[in-house]
Amino acid sequence: MKLPGQEEFEVSSACENVPTGELDNGTASGSSPDSPSDTDRGELGVPKDPLLFIQLNELLGWPQALEWRETGRWVLFEEKLEVGAGRWSVPHVPTLALPSLRKLRILLAEGLVLLDCPAQSFLELVEQVTRVDSLSPELRGQLQALLLQRPQHLIQPTGTRPCQGSAHPREASHSEEAPLKEQHQNPLRWKLPPGAEAGAVLAGELGFLVQPLGAFVRLRDPVVLGPLTEVPLPSRFFCLFLGPSTLGKGYHEMGRAMAVLLSDPQFQWSVRRASNLHDILAALDAFLEEVTVLPPGRWDPTARIAPPKCLPSQHKRILSQLREVQGPSAQHGALAEDRYGHRLQLRSPELQRTGRLFGGLIQDVRRKASWYPSDFLDALHPQCFSAVLYIYLATVTNAITFGGLLGEATSGAQGVLESFLGTAVAGAAFCLMAGQPLTILSSTGPVLVFERLLFSFSRDYNLDYLPFRLWVGIWVATFCLALVATEASVLVRYFTRFTEEGFCALISLIFIYDAVGKMLSLTSAYPIQSPGYPAYGCFCQYTDLGGNESQWMRTEPKDRDDISSLDLGLVNASLLPPPECARRGGRPRGPSCHAVPDIAFFSLLLFLTSFLLAMALKHVKTSRFFPSVVRKVLGDFSSVLAMLLGCGLDSFLGLATPKLTVPSEFKPTLPGRGWLVSPFGTNPWWLSVAAALPALLLSILIFMDQQITAVILNRAEYKLRKGAGFHLDLFCVAVLMVLTSALGLPWYVSATVISLAHMDSLRRESRACALGEPRSFLGIREQRLTGLVVFILTGTSIFLAPVLKFIPMPVLYGIFLYMGVAAISSIQFTKRIQLLLMPAKQQPDLLLLRHVPLSRVHLFTAIQLACLALLWIIKSTPAAIIFPLMLLGLVGVRKALERVFSPQELLWLDELMPEKERSIPEKGLEPEYSLSGDSEDSELMYQPRAPEINISVN
Amino acid sequence: MKLPGQEEFEVSSACENVPTGELDNGTASGSSPDSPSDTDRGELGVPKDPLLFIQLNELLGWPQALEWRETGRWVLFEEKLEVGAGRWSVPHVPTLALPSLRKLRILLAEGLVLLDCPAQSFLELVEQVTRVDSLSPELRGQLQALLLQRPQHLIQPTGTRPCQGSAHPREASHSEEAPLKEQHQNPLRWKLPPGAEAGAVLAGELGFLVQPLGAFVRLRDPVVLGPLTEVPLPSRFFCLFLGPSTLGKGYHEMGRAMAVLLSDPQFQWSVRRASNLHDILAALDAFLEEVTVLPPGRWDPTARIAPPKCLPSQHKRILSQLREVQGPSAQHGALAEDRYGHRLQLRSPELQRTGRLFGGLIQDVRRKASWYPSDFLDALHPQCFSAVLYIYLATVTNAITFGGLLGEATSGAQGVLESFLGTAVAGAAFCLMAGQPLTILSSTGPVLVFERLLFSFSRDYNLDYLPFRLWVGIWVATFCLALVATEASVLVRYFTRFTEEGFCALISLIFIYDAVGKMLSLTSAYPIQSPGYPAYGCFCQYTDLGGNESQWMRTEPKDRDDISSLDLGLVNASLLPPPECARRGGRPRGPSCHAVPDIAFFSLLLFLTSFLLAMALKHVKTSRFFPSVVRKVLGDFSSVLAMLLGCGLDSFLGLATPKLTVPSEFKPTLPGRGWLVSPFGTNPWWLSVAAALPALLLSILIFMDQQITAVILNRAEYKLRKGAGFHLDLFCVAVLMVLTSALGLPWYVSATVISLAHMDSLRRESRACALGEPRSFLGIREQRLTGLVVFILTGTSIFLAPVLKFIPMPVLYGIFLYMGVAAISSIQFTKRIQLLLMPAKQQPDLLLLRHVPLSRVHLFTAIQLACLALLWIIKSTPAAIIFPLMLLGLVGVRKALERVFSPQELLWLDELMPEKERSIPEKGLEPEYSLSGDSEDSELMYQPRAPEINISVN
Repeated sequence: MKLPGQEEFEVSSACENVPTGELDNGTASGSSPDSPSDTDRGELGVPKDPLLFIQLNELLGWPQALEWRETGRWVLFEEKLEVGAGRWSVPHVPTLALPSLRKLRILLAEGLVLLDCPAQSFLELVEQVTRVDSLSPELRGQLQALLLQRPQHLIQPTGTRPCQGSAHPREASHSEEAPLKEQHQNPLRWKLPPGAEAGAVLAGELGFLVQPLGAFVRLRDPVVLGPLTEVPLPSRFFCLFLGPSTLGKGYHEMGRAMAVLLSDPQFQWSVRRASNLHDILAALDAFLEEVTVLPPGRWDPTARIAPPKCLPSQHKRILSQLREVQGPSAQHGALAEDRYGHRLQLRSPELQRTGRLFGGLIQDVRRKASWYPSDFLDALHPQCFSAVLYIYLATVTNAITFGGLLGEATSGAQGVLESFLGTAVAGAAFCLMAGQPLTILSSTGPVLVFERLLFSFSRDYNLDYLPFRLWVGIWVATFCLALVATEASVLVRYFTRFTEEGFCALISLIFIYDAVGKMLSLTSAYPIQSPGYPAYGCFCQYTDLGGNESQWMRTEPKDRDDISSLDLGLVNASLLPPPECARRGGRPRGPSCHAVPDIAFFSLLLFLTSFLLAMALKHVKTSRFFPSVVRKVLGDFSSVLAMLLGCGLDSFLGLATPKLTVPSEFKPTLPGRGWLVSPFGTNPWWLSVAAALPALLLSILIFMDQQITAVILNRAEYKLRKGAGFHLDLFCVAVLMVLTSALGLPWYVSATVISLAHMDSLRRESRACALGEPRSFLGIREQRLTGLVVFILTGTSIFLAPVLKFIPMPVLYGIFLYMGVAAISSIQFTKRIQLLLMPAKQQPDLLLLRHVPLSRVHLFTAIQLACLALLWIIKSTPAAIIFPLMLLGLVGVRKALERVFSPQELLWLDELMPEKERSIPEKGLEPEYSLSGDSEDSELMYQPRAPEINISVN
Repeated sequence: MKLPGQEEFEVSSACENVPTGELDNGTASGSSPDSPSDTDRGELGVPKDPLLFIQLNELLGWPQALEWRETGRWVLFEEKLEVGAGRWSVPHVPTLALPSLRKLRILLAEGLVLLDCPAQSFLELVEQVTRVDSLSPELRGQLQALLLQRPQHLIQPTGTRPCQGSAHPREASHSEEAPLKEQHQNPLRWKLPPGAEAGAVLAGELGFLVQPLGAFVRLRDPVVLGPLTEVPLPSRFFCLFLGPSTLGKGYHEMGRAMAVLLSDPQFQWSVRRASNLHDILAALDAFLEEVTVLPPGRWDPTARIAPPKCLPSQHKRILSQLREVQGPSAQHGALAEDRYGHRLQLRSPELQRTGRLFGGLIQDVRRKASWYPSDFLDALHPQCFSAVLYIYLATVTNAITFGGLLGEATSGAQGVLESFLGTAVAGAAFCLMAGQPLTILSSTGPVLVFERLLFSFSRDYNLDYLPFRLWVGIWVATFCLALVATEASVLVRYFTRFTEEGFCALISLIFIYDAVGKMLSLTSAYPIQSPGYPAYGCFCQYTDLGGNESQWMRTEPKDRDDISSLDLGLVNASLLPPPECARRGGRPRGPSCHAVPDIAFFSLLLFLTSFLLAMALKHVKTSRFFPSVVRKVLGDFSSVLAMLLGCGLDSFLGLATPKLTVPSEFKPTLPGRGWLVSPFGTNPWWLSVAAALPALLLSILIFMDQQITAVILNRAEYKLRKGAGFHLDLFCVAVLMVLTSALGLPWYVSATVISLAHMDSLRRESRACALGEPRSFLGIREQRLTGLVVFILTGTSIFLAPVLKFIPMPVLYGIFLYMGVAAISSIQFTKRIQLLLMPAKQQPDLLLLRHVPLSRVHLFTAIQLACLALLWIIKSTPAAIIFPLMLLGLVGVRKALERVFSPQELLWLDELMPEKERSIPEKGLEPEYSLSGDSEDSELMYQPRAPEINISVN
């Protein structure tokens, strides 16, 4: 039930949901700065540099017992050896002292630099490095022996499984020294991508040297240097910084500085291509030009900074170089273009109008047809099995909850059985035909709300519901076909976040209100017996007045002391409980015969338990406890688990709580109807025409619900190869609308959350997973088989019915409440409402608040609140059924807001409508840029927005 | 119920609870680096430098519309103008680019430097600054006019009240330009301490200049420079950086760099004393030597870093200078000494043995006597009123909850009335006599547990409880006197965290177990009526068999359709509820007459509600919502509010939940006894001697409970002036022991949490509160009056009794559960248990884990768990009463642990026992320091530990 993009609002985590492929562009993984890519060749065709693993071996124990010890390692971030604890520290952003960089520069400039050194073994390398004039032959021998000494590595056995399967690091075939067994068994080895290279930095204090010894070696061919590095990777770089103790702890810091430099993508790129010392020093100077400096009085240099969620992209660094060359105006243009480029990228290319009737649909069909065979072949991957299991459970849970709700909403005209059958039929059909087969069809909140309104409308006017509904369905299909024909889907671009949030907030609130309301209505069905209640008596009175000795008297000898069967001096009455009484021919009489005590409060407990448990389990996913697999299972199946626990609790106590109504046979829930709905029933003929009116409203709703979901699913950041099919999808929905209406099954549209979960379970990721680096995202296994299997399984689950009747209704209400709360808390609107309650000083550092005056933010929130209140009022009047029209009215309100807010404010508070988008870069942003000179917003602004909204509460 | 020091375990927040006085040492507030102090004169008698408010005015709009605009300000941290949002950013650690510092250095070296400039007005200053050869007279005039132009300030009306009352910033008497009204009304003005000075940095691009113009001015006498700064402070520094646009955005960054430099305490100290340009450049170079550098590829320079919880202390910077001079060995010594110095400082000086009988007590009395008059005079401060209100509410809540628990534990031998009376009498007496009058006496968890065990023991042996208890009390007093005489309180140093945590964990677990157990026992008192239950019938049967027309028949005409009064064909019976039936002379008969439905589940709901609400309200304190006053009230009164809500819910539904038993008159809860307990009652005479045995155990408990609390309260970091009184306090507890035993009142010792809350509400703080800087802590208002008034009020609250009987027991159980959970979650032990459940990769970056191998941490935790399990088993056997002895046994176990763990491990896992403390610095720490060269633990390690433990669940 995780909602997409819910952290986008926060500056600190704004790019967490950005697929890592984007992030990868900026990360080091050995890529050259201007060729970021996810394969071995960059976008510009330049081969990607291999990833560099850097290790610092420190010489310790001078003068008593010299030994080399690995005290630090770097891939993206720094890990430091915690000597006392014997473990690696958490990866953190490396911090350096400026003097150590300066000293390093001096030592490099004075020391030995060997570029493209042809050494083929560590021994050769050591010989070359120590061939320095300042060393006497004895010293040279001593030093060589010392360098060849085997270093101490802390090899940590971790519980993580290898993440690259059978890949083998590149081995140097001509290496003399066989790597050690412990090196080969190092679990770290499996975390580095194939082709990774090592860089070894050796540093330390060596008293017998007269002057400092510095060496920087780039090997022509990377060679495995025996036991030098903890993983048997071929080394590309080798640096040595030794010297007498005059520099104090300087060598340690210098070694770290060298390692940090090597781990910097820009520096690494330069030194890989450097042809002489000057190039290396220039790269170091370029590094220094770009470092961030923290003042000593305000920052403790020993504090560890956690890795940022977003790495600065090379893009930005290139921009800043651009600035140096071209001055500020060039940068403005680049920034603005960049930002808008990303925003526009969110619009799917499929949303271009062709201008021909059904042009979009035909294009969709053509595009998808070519992929059709691969849609089945691409599913042959073990990952698809787990995806099926996960999505199946989610779908069944959904079918149960929505089925239960539907049964209540329509007084049993439809129910759980219809929900299962409909989900299976519609879902499977959609998977086979649709433009975007990753979509999972489901009953969604908005459609459910509409169905309830439609039912109460038809009840108020004594209509025969299912036939009426059939006509509504037929009309909706007609209208949808018209929308397909006119390529109306491109209008979805006018649905901005303002509309989406209004939509989501209203539906979520209805969910919350209904869940709580239904729960409370249980307390009137099962009244609480307060002390003032007249009596809790209930007799069994026998109508048989013929004999004085009534039937129950005969049981007396058997259970002598059972007070309920004792003769209390009454005539023809006993204290037997009502069912027993009825069985023996009596008639229960008294005020308490129909009262079941304790049910109300127990139901409330079940309701709260399932709600709170689902909420808690959802948060387990982000907690520190348990291995990540367990956390993921608990988080992903939070509602299933909460439901199971609620059922367990209920059956443990065995109270007569209200349960889910499930038909015992495979027949429609409404007694007496067949599977096919008759087209007229008892309704007058003209109703089939009049049904067009509600159908118009439903069409609006279906269109909004379906298309907003489709836009989210087809966003560019998911890297879908096979393209979207907006028109084809809507066409399928329309066809299924007729089918489900004719069979009296629920109506279905695409469900955002469950479809996103489906895509998430099918992510293709790079096998490389360097320390601290997120795996890079390659795309989605786009195919039709997982969805198809899920829905076939759902269909067979109809025979689960005997089990389903053990589910207490309060548990379902709890899950509904959870869905409503989860959906409403995911939208930015909610977070802006929270801002109303926070003093300005306490407000989080949101990008939004950096750019829009607080009063304007509050005004925007207040307008949204007013719209919501209006929608709610309309929903509560008899005119409730027109609420889809009112939702559409939000688009109008949003348009009107352009008169109240400046485009720049709207850009931050919402997003821009199509025609405004182009007009901004020229004038809208200039004032701000020219004022503060350099935008100090962080990199985050240049990241595309993550999917933002959960439009459907499913 | 906030527990002290609970965050100490986390690296990231380790010094949050350190009184800010400590923190202040390291903060800028204008102090010279080696004279940190909380008054105007430093510890070394050097006058403290005034605080510097730095403002950056930027020249914008070249060439069209030039204007000065304040775009940044600094006191401790940087606040940036959010141009778009029109607000100040959140304070953050300033980050600089290295090139801007370099350019600044060049410009300073080439520019104008005026030290001790005698200018008396802004006009004069401007004239002096522009007297540069490179400017032609026209340009000079133009520049002067530009400089004198009024800058734009963003003056933010904030809701914060002035925090320095009537203090006025120092005004320059001879200033010509009257500051503007908006400057005077700036709320920021009230946040700066009196005597604060301003530093103005003016920077920008000015096209008509041919070459860059740099000026650094230190004014001889600080002068209010008209509307230059947003607050009308006298300015000490004035810097100007203008130039042609060749430098791009360089001037903005240069201005920022200058401002950041000025906000650095070390740099500021140097330039205040600089006598020439060379000194200033040297200070800049010294700054550069110490900066922290973040690599560009791993840190986005535009990301904002939140202010660290701990500022690096000047102490550390001096140490690092020391290192430069003396080499690493000097530093090791200094660091080690420093760390141990702080640890030893925690031991109160009052814990030195005098060696004479009652020597400690006599010293205590002497010391306290001299302060006695001031103990009343010092209370004359409005702050004491709010302290009284806060502590009174906490005390009354405590009296109610513990009274309720005591009533249950002793089957009514004592109750709420005794709790109120005892709290009032004992508390007031203690406040008048004690060594540490800030202590709030209370029933504490351990004593309550013992009392319950004692009661069940006496019940098992048919003893007359109160007389037996009287003798126990007398013996305890005797033993305690012996402990006072022998100055046993100094032994408290052997109670390490291991002991404290064992103590706390056991008591907390007992609380949790009891609360849940008592709640569940309600479900057997009010059974849940399951469907299988025979019947829920209850009749009213009339014993009057004389007439056929029984009494109730007469009521028939009145309520015709009331089924309970209808003739159901029964003889002499009705369905009237039992109370009504009894009133009318009938007899209720049937299985359900005594069953009250719905109570069990409703009680459970009340229990959960009060528990969860108390937990939630406690967390409000650290949330972002509501103004800080509201948050503090909600957090501090969480249990009161939770209790009130529970009572409200209960009375709203009006169910017959079990309520707190409160006597209706002012007489002992036990029926038939007078206020004075008879010394023997029905007990044999020898029991008065035998009572010595349990008394011995209770003495151990009282001693541990009282003294550990006393040590925590008297820690050096609270800066108590009037000293502690360990021996006197124990003496008072002993005397009160006799008194309360004789009156049959509960026993009292010092309560940690409530006493700490008392001290917290009496903090004296410096009036200065610069932006982002915590107020500095000056000490506590040590006096006897607040405590006394609190207990007098508690005494008068005995007449609250009629109100108290509305409190449902489940609500109290919920509060007990909350207390237990809050106490157990505050100890490091719990956090170490949580580590067992976390994969190593997910573990937080704890100092502990940086220094001790994980397996050793787990071993230590496992040993503690085993001890706890053993204690629990003993508590569950008939030998439960000896549990205080077992708690003392923890000290022995801890001693034995010295054979299992190295002293260094114990230093991190626990703390050292007295005789080991001295032996470590020489050998224990050396290996680690010599290995990693420079300790990379942050400043946190040199902070004294915050109070660590909540020993009493009160």
